[in-house]
Amino acid sequence: MAPSAQSDIVTAAVLVIGDEILSGRTQDQNSHYIARYLADIGVDLREVRVVPDDEDEIVAAVNALRGRYDYVFTTGGIGPTHDDITADAIARAFGVPIEEDPRAIAMLLERLKLDQLNAARRRMARIPQGAELVENSLTKAPGFMIDNVIVMAGVPMIMHLMLDAVAPKLKTGVRVLVETIDAAGVPEGRYAAGLTALAAAHPEVSAGSYPHFSQAGVHNEIVLRSRDAAALAAASVAVRALIESLRGDRATC
Amino acid sequence: MAPSAQSDIVTAAVLVIGDEILSGRTQDQNSHYIARYLADIGVDLREVRVVPDDEDEIVAAVNALRGRYDYVFTTGGIGPTHDDITADAIARAFGVPIEEDPRAIAMLLERLKLDQLNAARRRMARIPQGAELVENSLTKAPGFMIDNVIVMAGVPMIMHLMLDAVAPKLKTGVRVLVETIDAAGVPEGRYAAGLTALAAAHPEVSAGSYPHFSQAGVHNEIVLRSRDAAALAAASVAVRALIESLRGDRATC
Repeated sequence: MAPSAQSDIVTAAVLVIGDEILSGRTQDQNSHYIARYLADIGVDLREVRVVPDDEDEIVAAVNALRGRYDYVFTTGGIGPTHDDITADAIARAFGVPIEEDPRAIAMLLERLKLDQLNAARRRMARIPQGAELVENSLTKAPGFMIDNVIVMAGVPMIMHLMLDAVAPKLKTGVRVLVETIDAAGVPEGRYAAGLTALAAAHPEVSAGSYPHFSQAGVHNEIVLRSRDAAALAAASVAVRALIESLRGDRATC
Repeated sequence: MAPSAQSDIVTAAVLVIGDEILSGRTQDQNSHYIARYLADIGVDLREVRVVPDDEDEIVAAVNALRGRYDYVFTTGGIGPTHDDITADAIARAFGVPIEEDPRAIAMLLERLKLDQLNAARRRMARIPQGAELVENSLTKAPGFMIDNVIVMAGVPMIMHLMLDAVAPKLKTGVRVLVETIDAAGVPEGRYAAGLTALAAAHPEVSAGSYPHFSQAGVHNEIVLRSRDAAALAAASVAVRALIESLRGDRATC
């Protein structure tokens, strides 16, 4: 396979919106889920940001990210309460009006009775002009996609449904292939020089070294990544041989 | 207690450096740990970014964040392998030279024999000029603090030790106090209007509404946060009364 053309690469960022993540109340699970999901479909996640429930911060982050990456996935802030300000922030970021969308109202009424559709719940139907809705079969309150920005719920169960709903509409690139090489018992400082040389000799492959410590000792892994299967296989053989040649150093780094 | 003066507030950002997080291989645990740790000592985490092992990206992020927040905590990229480029990136961000630091070499030699101190391991002693070292009792390879940027390992066990080592040197603000109110069985759309009014009536308190769904149904929580204990107590009484008055709506949002 020839080296990947630029068009084989589709990039993305995740923007997590939520005071609860920054305060330490909640551990963000969404960005890791999206990272794995995008890797599987051939989209490279290049950046994650977490910002508070603050309109200026959201607008600035959306505008910084949407210009740099093919897609931006946001999570959080699209519910019915006063701290749900993402839709307004996105409209402001794009400079478009936001109003109640009859399609979104129709979706909400699949789950809510008409007398339950109060002003707060109608807020969930406020969609920036020009956006396409992204369905959610659980509560029916939709996310949306405007240009290259996909706006999803923060509740993981709902976010997963929205990602499934929008994924078929995304352009995708050539998947990155991964080989993980077990370097258990060999400290990083022992293989670093050899790995540096092999990384230079295999420019189509990116090599990462990930140390892990436990009571049982050092347990490192080397991860090789490439869009080129033949290059990956060649690098993998070379790195495995390097590690096998170096066993028996008892240092921890 | 009077409203907090600006000087009562100390802010921070976390910069996670690592391809392994963005590729979905590893779930970042460090930013959540740091978020909780900082909340406990009275530092407000305002932003998290995750960037790849790319010097330009690291430099840009460090310079964007260090100008905006009192502290920036980085994790990852300070080991002995070729993909560990954080120290060089930090030196470049500050425009200072980087060289081998004899204090760091001395620390490494507490764990390594002299004949183990090869070129790769010496890389872990390369420290930007003007930085203070941050000790790590596990592997002895230090992190460092330069101006308001604290550079720590990505391995959680080591990062925890470094955070403990640097924390006593940080200025801290007034801690944010938190009250969590159980709104089990009351959907957000039912209490949103009342909560909006209460949030407006209690400007010293920030109120967040966090829906949770499971097979058992809706289980929301309202989180009130403030530096003012009396204001927090008053808002808490009012929000609890609101929720109790609204039980019995079977919608999910």
